[in-house]
Amino acid sequence: MVRFRPNIEAMVPYVPGEQPAPGTKVIKLNTNENPYPPSPKVAAAIQAELAGGGERLRLYSDPKALALRQAAADVFGFPMEQILHGNGSDELLAMLCRAFVGEGQAIAYSYPTYVLYETLAHAQGARILAFDYDRDFNLPRQLFGCGAQLVFVASPNSPSGTTYSRAQLTELARSLRDGVLAVDEAYVPFADSDNLALAKELDNVVVLRTFSKSHSLAGMRLGLLYGSARIVSGLWKVKDSYNLDRLAIVAGAASLRDTAWTAANVKKVRATRERLSGALAALGLDVVPSQSNFIFARMKDAATAAGAYRFLKERGILIRYFPARLLDDGVRVSVGTDAEVDALLAALKEYLGRG
Amino acid sequence: MVRFRPNIEAMVPYVPGEQPAPGTKVIKLNTNENPYPPSPKVAAAIQAELAGGGERLRLYSDPKALALRQAAADVFGFPMEQILHGNGSDELLAMLCRAFVGEGQAIAYSYPTYVLYETLAHAQGARILAFDYDRDFNLPRQLFGCGAQLVFVASPNSPSGTTYSRAQLTELARSLRDGVLAVDEAYVPFADSDNLALAKELDNVVVLRTFSKSHSLAGMRLGLLYGSARIVSGLWKVKDSYNLDRLAIVAGAASLRDTAWTAANVKKVRATRERLSGALAALGLDVVPSQSNFIFARMKDAATAAGAYRFLKERGILIRYFPARLLDDGVRVSVGTDAEVDALLAALKEYLGRG
Repeated sequence: MVRFRPNIEAMVPYVPGEQPAPGTKVIKLNTNENPYPPSPKVAAAIQAELAGGGERLRLYSDPKALALRQAAADVFGFPMEQILHGNGSDELLAMLCRAFVGEGQAIAYSYPTYVLYETLAHAQGARILAFDYDRDFNLPRQLFGCGAQLVFVASPNSPSGTTYSRAQLTELARSLRDGVLAVDEAYVPFADSDNLALAKELDNVVVLRTFSKSHSLAGMRLGLLYGSARIVSGLWKVKDSYNLDRLAIVAGAASLRDTAWTAANVKKVRATRERLSGALAALGLDVVPSQSNFIFARMKDAATAAGAYRFLKERGILIRYFPARLLDDGVRVSVGTDAEVDALLAALKEYLGRG
Repeated sequence: MVRFRPNIEAMVPYVPGEQPAPGTKVIKLNTNENPYPPSPKVAAAIQAELAGGGERLRLYSDPKALALRQAAADVFGFPMEQILHGNGSDELLAMLCRAFVGEGQAIAYSYPTYVLYETLAHAQGARILAFDYDRDFNLPRQLFGCGAQLVFVASPNSPSGTTYSRAQLTELARSLRDGVLAVDEAYVPFADSDNLALAKELDNVVVLRTFSKSHSLAGMRLGLLYGSARIVSGLWKVKDSYNLDRLAIVAGAASLRDTAWTAANVKKVRATRERLSGALAALGLDVVPSQSNFIFARMKDAATAAGAYRFLKERGILIRYFPARLLDDGVRVSVGTDAEVDALLAALKEYLGRG
């Protein structure tokens, strides 16, 4: 019988948020997708790449994804040599683990956060340093100077929607000495400010962005990493050569350059978020102030929260419930369209009225 | 200063075959792409997925890639639970390393072969057991019972185009006991026979296929792995959840189901290969009999082979020259269209006539 590495054998696979069967009519507020479509320039760019009946698809894609990285360099004013492209930011997170963390070395993060960090640490055979957030999701002091080779901080964090300041992250990065701080800014376009500048200022900080949320391209698998030239050139060594296909590259470049489209969608999501936040509070939920495109809100107890998830699911509304420590009395709701949010609020009101 | 793992710090990055700048007019016979376009059903499937101006792209792709795996199950008569999808077979090769090989454990292969195996072994911090092929590319005896956790055999091998028999591979797999044999069949659709059945018969064998060659979809990044239920379920743990984008999934499924298109292109490539093989021999090259969509042929000496590469490049014809042990007296030529092959042969004749 074949033998997996012991860390792999022991692993529980990461379970992504549930996806309704194709054709099912649901209001999907469980995986933080953008409720609005991507820029029309995305489909146009894909069509252009498909010219001649898709003839070009027979040729390898650009391993350097120049069109995509140049667009990011232009839009964000960042040197292209310090930008690396990933098959979703998930792939970039895995690349960081593979490049910096040997077997038995440490990966640190706060809990609760994006579950994939733990999965990747197990896959790498790393030692895990996980420190609890407090109820308000302040950055745990144990993270500072923790000695890990790699520290993940999601800002905004999921499922809390809370952000961490430039001062805090700078202090954290400095405390790690030659360890790397990866600031996962998947949700940052929905926040009041970002920390991309840290990737320029500090040699041991990388910032990750995704196209899955603000760019409405979860289905295209695109992420970007920003960091020092030294880090980026090392990460190339563990990157799959042709990690992005031809259509993803042109889709990402077109989406990045249509800044007006992205800004307009982000503005709508933020407005709906504020309305949803107020309405949830009015229903008696304990809402964690969110800087993201989702809201985590606590209920009376775990039974109430789990019940809400089930009640909504029966009515065709998918939200996220985490049956886990520190989270099981709350629900995470993605910010949908105004109509979707209205439907959610009506159903939730009905549920709570029963109790 | 940040510290990469020592194995990463020491690594020389894998250099993929050179890609001409966009818009350059070259005859590209250096990276074994298919000279014929993909099935028209591929572009049609992508168009369908883009319906509504690309609205669907805002939603995550199917982590299970059911449409793709079902198509493979139907076409190859293999249980879907024993098929895993990759972002190119390169990603599947990396997943095998991550799942089976701990730091300091061994990865084995014959040399020369696909250079990525070495790159992946270094990235994993593995010990490398590399055994030389003889001049005719027979499988080295040292590979049998070598004790490695993972053994890669490309069949057809690159750059030789040689295949390995069911009997040989069975003996090799059995000799590895609880080690895994990965048979990389990227090029097998161009061969007289394949060994997919081994992935059903032997618990420690996986077979990998790619869409980059016979399916003319190098630009879409698609690969599939076939193996025992135990191996496949373990590999899911190290797989990026959403490793394929929406367009890649539908493209791959459509291409797989258009078996007539693939068969017709393969037939043309095989016919051109036989003609090219004969013509190269007539020019005095020592041609290794190929079962693939490329041919490795030796010349008088390394200077002659390197000179041929440069001479052809100046004339807009890209072939592959490996300045490496056991390979530097030869060139690898991808099988192009008949017109491309004619241009190659004319230029090569001119080059050799000078010497």
